[in-house]
Amino acid sequence: ATAAYTAKAGQEAFIFMPNDTPKAFQVECEQYGAHVEMIDGLISDCGKIIAERKDQEGWFDISTLKEPYRVEGKKTMGYELAEQLNWELPDVIIYPTGGGTGIVAMWKAFDEMEKLGWIGSHRPKMISVQSEGCAPIIRAFEQGKDSADFFENPETSALGLRVPAAIGDFLILKAIRESNGYALTVSDKELMDNVKMIGKHEGIFSAPEGGATVATLPKLLDLGVLNSKDRIVLFITGGGLKYV
Amino acid sequence: ATAAYTAKAGQEAFIFMPNDTPKAFQVECEQYGAHVEMIDGLISDCGKIIAERKDQEGWFDISTLKEPYRVEGKKTMGYELAEQLNWELPDVIIYPTGGGTGIVAMWKAFDEMEKLGWIGSHRPKMISVQSEGCAPIIRAFEQGKDSADFFENPETSALGLRVPAAIGDFLILKAIRESNGYALTVSDKELMDNVKMIGKHEGIFSAPEGGATVATLPKLLDLGVLNSKDRIVLFITGGGLKYV
Repeated sequence: ATAAYTAKAGQEAFIFMPNDTPKAFQVECEQYGAHVEMIDGLISDCGKIIAERKDQEGWFDISTLKEPYRVEGKKTMGYELAEQLNWELPDVIIYPTGGGTGIVAMWKAFDEMEKLGWIGSHRPKMISVQSEGCAPIIRAFEQGKDSADFFENPETSALGLRVPAAIGDFLILKAIRESNGYALTVSDKELMDNVKMIGKHEGIFSAPEGGATVATLPKLLDLGVLNSKDRIVLFITGGGLKYV
Repeated sequence: ATAAYTAKAGQEAFIFMPNDTPKAFQVECEQYGAHVEMIDGLISDCGKIIAERKDQEGWFDISTLKEPYRVEGKKTMGYELAEQLNWELPDVIIYPTGGGTGIVAMWKAFDEMEKLGWIGSHRPKMISVQSEGCAPIIRAFEQGKDSADFFENPETSALGLRVPAAIGDFLILKAIRESNGYALTVSDKELMDNVKMIGKHEGIFSAPEGGATVATLPKLLDLGVLNSKDRIVLFITGGGLKYV
């Protein structure tokens, strides 16, 4: 998205991604004229390289929550949700959590909208889902901690969830707890099975992260976190084509 | 699209595609639960197989213009265009032409909208673009014919344009001529260069067909078919990700 927006704005983009990222992500950025570097490491290593080089190179660092604008941009998810539901928020929001800006931003948007008088004080339960192979937020939630530890050797086919340390971990955990929400993991098999299920029944070709979201439903019903009368919004945060 | 819609509707889809179609097209259909067969031949061969087997199998044939609904569906392009331009049609529409239903459908939509009193009698010049390697419509236009001959050995990297015979050729040619439009080819190099140009300057990752559309602009200006004051709509009919 950064590469596309900077292209449209006539600016240069320097993009860093782990070198096992599917080829389509790289090709798309290059089509937008971005400078792409594939890094032997994780997304957190990419962040480190940018932090080290940015002053010398004159880059403006737009890594997740390293700047004020991404969370402001993602707030529109909260505003659009309210608008499309006629200014009545749902009872539950299930969100696949990598960097976690989505949850933080929606939580902020709800607060702003209440102050504006657009919505009342009703808040959805914010539910964070991560993959068993990379679950720093879920682990911190279960242990009652305010921030998350680095998740060693993260591994999951949902690359958007392969974020071993989230800069805004404390904000994500705060939103989950304040909303009386929940945090849970799904396995890679469960999330991939649900990608297929979504395709077959909804005609939506979801990225693995969307499969993770849907895979939580039976678990949350079993746990009693949801009931069948709740109005539930499931976020599918990307399309599956890039993973082919 | 058929596979996605039938999935959503709980119906079965049987999809045939040339076996050199990029993998992503196949995988996406399979994700929607469709039965996919890769055919050693062209899209016209796929059409033949469906025609031969449909009675025995009990299939409803939705090949391009073999049924009444696709053209009705694509009419929405005409309606949306008018709506988004405040019920004033543009001066020029440039459309990448494979099966050509887009042009036929928009032309029908304009007629309906005039009868409904929503628009006046002003019509855009309808401009059809095909690839040099597969240009049955352009050849027929240049030769003043009412229908097109089968284009032997079609070859182009814009797979959506690799349609050697269009069922609705006479309707496409009629719309072009009635609109005082034009039909022209671009080379594969031109269309791929323009895919890059669109990416770099607009932040849009277009499929090759969109590159073909944009590649016509300087040619049409040189030819005097367009002038710089015209309001021109260029159709990009697909995203580039499936071609990676």
